[in-house]
Amino acid sequence: MNQFSKTRVLTGITTSGTPHLGNYVGAIKPAIEASQDPSVQSFYFLADYHALIKCQDPKRVQQSRLEIAATWLALGLDTDNAIFYRQSDIPEIPELTWMLSCVCAKGLMNRAHAYKAAVAENEEAGNQDPDKGITMGLFGYPVLMAADILMFNAHKVPVGRDQIQHIEMARDIAGRFNHLYKGEYFTLPNAVVDEKSQVLGGLDGRKMSKSYNNTIPLFVGEKKLQKLVRKIKTNSLEPGEPKDPDTCTLFQIYAAFASDEETAAMRRQYAEGIGWGDAKNQVFEYLNAHLAEPRERYNALMEDPGHIEAVLQRGAERAREETAVTMDKLRATVGLGRFS
Amino acid sequence: MNQFSKTRVLTGITTSGTPHLGNYVGAIKPAIEASQDPSVQSFYFLADYHALIKCQDPKRVQQSRLEIAATWLALGLDTDNAIFYRQSDIPEIPELTWMLSCVCAKGLMNRAHAYKAAVAENEEAGNQDPDKGITMGLFGYPVLMAADILMFNAHKVPVGRDQIQHIEMARDIAGRFNHLYKGEYFTLPNAVVDEKSQVLGGLDGRKMSKSYNNTIPLFVGEKKLQKLVRKIKTNSLEPGEPKDPDTCTLFQIYAAFASDEETAAMRRQYAEGIGWGDAKNQVFEYLNAHLAEPRERYNALMEDPGHIEAVLQRGAERAREETAVTMDKLRATVGLGRFS
Repeated sequence: MNQFSKTRVLTGITTSGTPHLGNYVGAIKPAIEASQDPSVQSFYFLADYHALIKCQDPKRVQQSRLEIAATWLALGLDTDNAIFYRQSDIPEIPELTWMLSCVCAKGLMNRAHAYKAAVAENEEAGNQDPDKGITMGLFGYPVLMAADILMFNAHKVPVGRDQIQHIEMARDIAGRFNHLYKGEYFTLPNAVVDEKSQVLGGLDGRKMSKSYNNTIPLFVGEKKLQKLVRKIKTNSLEPGEPKDPDTCTLFQIYAAFASDEETAAMRRQYAEGIGWGDAKNQVFEYLNAHLAEPRERYNALMEDPGHIEAVLQRGAERAREETAVTMDKLRATVGLGRFS
Repeated sequence: MNQFSKTRVLTGITTSGTPHLGNYVGAIKPAIEASQDPSVQSFYFLADYHALIKCQDPKRVQQSRLEIAATWLALGLDTDNAIFYRQSDIPEIPELTWMLSCVCAKGLMNRAHAYKAAVAENEEAGNQDPDKGITMGLFGYPVLMAADILMFNAHKVPVGRDQIQHIEMARDIAGRFNHLYKGEYFTLPNAVVDEKSQVLGGLDGRKMSKSYNNTIPLFVGEKKLQKLVRKIKTNSLEPGEPKDPDTCTLFQIYAAFASDEETAAMRRQYAEGIGWGDAKNQVFEYLNAHLAEPRERYNALMEDPGHIEAVLQRGAERAREETAVTMDKLRATVGLGRFS
């Protein structure tokens, strides 16, 4: 089976934060598992052009790119199989973005959820300018995202519910281009929403998320991990009183990592009234043991950015074997081909 | 004097039409003359990404690029001195466009004349959607234009009055980037409006312009040139009646090419009542003689697209010696640098 007959699955990872347990359980783990399917050609990329929309702190963007790359590699992403690259290493992506801009209706962007939410926020705050603080990057990023996807003719794009609209926009733009230039230049991508995908709770019980500042970083050191697990919000039940695992963030985090039997055993301990201190110690020990090995790999990788760079360069080369050919064809299609 | 201490002057030529006498007199001739100034480093580029905004006919875009390149070369553009390239050969341009998008307020684009005119047209036509028919390319092209200019740190950009706002926008975006990333990354460009620049009349007496369909193509064949000159609108004065050269398109076209003495001589003939047929013959003969040599070069160039391609490739190489270095620096600035 060659790579063109395989189902093409594309995943972008925005590089503006530090990977945490919630990212791992909800996105990274299932993605790495999926990439092992031999009928699939996976594309994973560090969406670092996207990061510029929200983050104008160069150190944070740079650090996040490094941490995310190290995380995926430490967790065993098979980069011989999957194509793993950095968006900013593919100059054909912004070029395609411009081409698509020229066929994409502005009205489509007016209706984007993220943009509308930003306008609504301005209106609620009583700002005279509904576009206050909104950049062209924020307004136009669904076009960049369409270029990310259409460039590789991805069939499937795993996304959260909030991203479904962007995939529809990519389909819309692809269809418009195909129609205007009378050909099947782009595959229409499909959003894949994993209904079973787990949303992990954070320290305060709300969804674990950078924006809530309630995360447990995936590869934090042992002591810090222990400290953070102890901070997970529980209730005031005393040792000996039975506890409800199904409303408990601590239990949920444990279950996301433990086997079914281990989870069942912990459930019994909750029923038997395990004390919170004891439970937290057990969860910490379990997580720590589970993460020790990849954490060691992660730390070694973080010490060797040259190696990560080399891996990403190789990924970019593989990606550009396709993008260079695709863009040559597209340039000729729109009238920007060479003269000889 | 090295190229960095010279004044940098940048001119883009949108590739969606065939060069006509009006382009020559108003833009090409003065630009080629200016490029001979040794204190100036000129940049001329075929703005073919811009052409995609208005023209989705690949053949026309391709043909226009070829015709415009051949025209400038036939008219003696010194490509050893000036840097002459095709925008679409510089992948750093769309990349910079994205970077600038992330610091450019959407509100700035809302106020662009071209966009506002398109919205006004929709409103006048009673369209429910004020953005009807407006693409993201049309809406965002001042950002692409800013990238064109800022990429080369151009000091001066010769423009028509209608383009002054775009230069102000480029200044605004440059200032915003410099401020956010705390450095003097970009030179603030200045618009240069040539107040003496001639606007030539067309066949019907209105400004010669592709949109009015009243042009005389610069390198049209001899017979066609004669036919077109004969079509220039004059009045119904008979031979022998004195004629006013100052309200006469035919005279104006002649004067744009002729020497001061030749112009004065024609002025006398008008006073003496030259017949229109006679005047048109004289103007045709003069234009034809004046254009014969560059037309021959033009035709030879059009027969040899491989040569034009090679000239443009060399220009792109020279341009990319700068753009590659500039983008490396900018990538590091925003946090997209390499890891080692």
